Amino acid sequence: MNDYRGKRIIVTGGLGFIGSNLAIRLVEAGASVTIIDSRVPGCGANLFNIAPIVPGIDLIESCIGDVERFASALKEADAIFNLAGEISHSRSMDDPERDLYLNTVTQLRFLLACRANCPGARILYASTRQIYGKPVYLPVDEQHPVQPIDFNGVHKCAATQYHLLLARRGDLDCRVLRLSNVYGPRMALHLPQQGFLGVYVARALNGEPIVVYGDGEQLRDPVHVDDVVEVFLRAGLAPDLKSRVFNVGGPQPVTLNEIAAAAARQSGRSPIHHLPFPEHLIRMDIGSYFSDLTRTQRELGWVPSIEFEAGLKGTLAYYREHRDRYFGFTKQPELPTAARLEYPAVTQ
Amino acid sequence: MNDYRGKRIIVTGGLGFIGSNLAIRLVEAGASVTIIDSRVPGCGANLFNIAPIVPGIDLIESCIGDVERFASALKEADAIFNLAGEISHSRSMDDPERDLYLNTVTQLRFLLACRANCPGARILYASTRQIYGKPVYLPVDEQHPVQPIDFNGVHKCAATQYHLLLARRGDLDCRVLRLSNVYGPRMALHLPQQGFLGVYVARALNGEPIVVYGDGEQLRDPVHVDDVVEVFLRAGLAPDLKSRVFNVGGPQPVTLNEIAAAAARQSGRSPIHHLPFPEHLIRMDIGSYFSDLTRTQRELGWVPSIEFEAGLKGTLAYYREHRDRYFGFTKQPELPTAARLEYPAVTQ
Repeated sequence: MNDYRGKRIIVTGGLGFIGSNLAIRLVEAGASVTIIDSRVPGCGANLFNIAPIVPGIDLIESCIGDVERFASALKEADAIFNLAGEISHSRSMDDPERDLYLNTVTQLRFLLACRANCPGARILYASTRQIYGKPVYLPVDEQHPVQPIDFNGVHKCAATQYHLLLARRGDLDCRVLRLSNVYGPRMALHLPQQGFLGVYVARALNGEPIVVYGDGEQLRDPVHVDDVVEVFLRAGLAPDLKSRVFNVGGPQPVTLNEIAAAAARQSGRSPIHHLPFPEHLIRMDIGSYFSDLTRTQRELGWVPSIEFEAGLKGTLAYYREHRDRYFGFTKQPELPTAARLEYPAVTQ
Repeated sequence: MNDYRGKRIIVTGGLGFIGSNLAIRLVEAGASVTIIDSRVPGCGANLFNIAPIVPGIDLIESCIGDVERFASALKEADAIFNLAGEISHSRSMDDPERDLYLNTVTQLRFLLACRANCPGARILYASTRQIYGKPVYLPVDEQHPVQPIDFNGVHKCAATQYHLLLARRGDLDCRVLRLSNVYGPRMALHLPQQGFLGVYVARALNGEPIVVYGDGEQLRDPVHVDDVVEVFLRAGLAPDLKSRVFNVGGPQPVTLNEIAAAAARQSGRSPIHHLPFPEHLIRMDIGSYFSDLTRTQRELGWVPSIEFEAGLKGTLAYYREHRDRYFGFTKQPELPTAARLEYPAVTQ
């Protein structure tokens, strides 16, 4: 596969933040795109995200675990960008079994269906820096110990291992990207559990206070979604690779204070508030993190190109133009807690 | 907790191989023991294993995921030896979701119930060297990369991470032992999927050929169950520890050829057959493995004391005395494939 023109591509979680940006770029590149997305409440699916490519893609509304609903689409796939999942750390602590279902159980079913239906397809999985836990050294490379500090990290780790195990066995050609904090157009701004960058963007947009917990000197390496899309596309086209796991992060480490200051500048209205670290957050805090991108640059020829403040400026411009599509509500929507995810019995 | 006298101890999987040996020693040490065991077919539960301590213990026949069935027992527990699970690598490849349920889903439910009911109890978890996968160096210490090569390894790894995550948060006092190949009295000899040591013992007992695949030069460090019981007891009594993960292996590495030769000698009748490695096994083979026990010795003061051939001799003596309790059938029992494990829906 040299380029995406005419290729049949599946994007799971394609209505979400990164998935929709990727689907748009794939359509622009001439691919035939099928999105599989369950629109599970709380996970960031937003039909408006794919407005630029509707009609022109296929959308299968299905959990990735309900494999019989899209087996025929799998059979024709040249590559699968596997971005479905729940990313909220805090919600995984509130309801660990929901997170286990969304990030592990369904991924197992999905990958077994891929093995049965499209063993030749390339599979690109969106993993997360969260599985490293609290860094024991910086920058964090792909050999860093895996010691997640929340259930979301455990479950994404298990799904990562499924991909790597099936690759090691020669069953599937999987490649795994471990994403740092991603920002840009099409984030679910109304879901504060999806990360502090979305919260900062939302507050900058609304001129509300931007809150920094603790001394604000923790480092992060925010990466723009356009850069992330680029590295996914490269990972999908790369022929045989030496490695199967690649860190993906931003162009440089910045402190939370710097991130907050940039957001306040771009807002023009938001003040910055410093508050003590709340107890429930301190127990999930990882201190400073930034990625060692040496392997990704060497094997995929990719470096992040979008400086944080420039990327933030464009991000805010996007939301100013489409505010009503991301802020039709000021609070997060009520989750239907009485509803149940499909979780069939397992034969022994 | 200085000793086990008068202490209330729960052993999950207490009808199985290691769990039953542990329960017997705990009763001898004066503990009040409750066994929780689901007797799920294929996992090695055998009521005869606890014959020496019946009556005198409480037995709750329950999956560890059905937490409402034993919440009151949890409330009184001083320590929990958590050995429930499925250990078969090959069966996890045949039915990954069964393995996910038995080793991960139910462990999550169990640990959350422990957090709710007995946050002060010490929890000792039986993990496995399997999560290390194919060693990248020898001997394997606790820092070795985790890269399981079968689903069983992925799921035991996730359960290990649950224990460590809850310990890191200060929610539960968990300690994890990563077991090498364990042998001794009370193995499920009729279940060949539970490891080659049980198969060798069974064949030696019956005078059947002992089969070595490949050149037989792969190393293992078999450890006798009495040594394993001893390290579990020590880990349960140790006050604050620097580490939470400890390797447990045998006194020295031996080749499969040496293990087979010892089994043949102790049998007096079994020939040794060399066969090429079958394809389905070669893909799960980890090459050579033996444990670095430095940390375990330093922090728990434990070293394995039982030499392999002496341990094997005693093991065969046990099964010769109780053959009908472990060999009432010559083949493995039919698993009720139509039966279903309880796998309730998950609220979102």
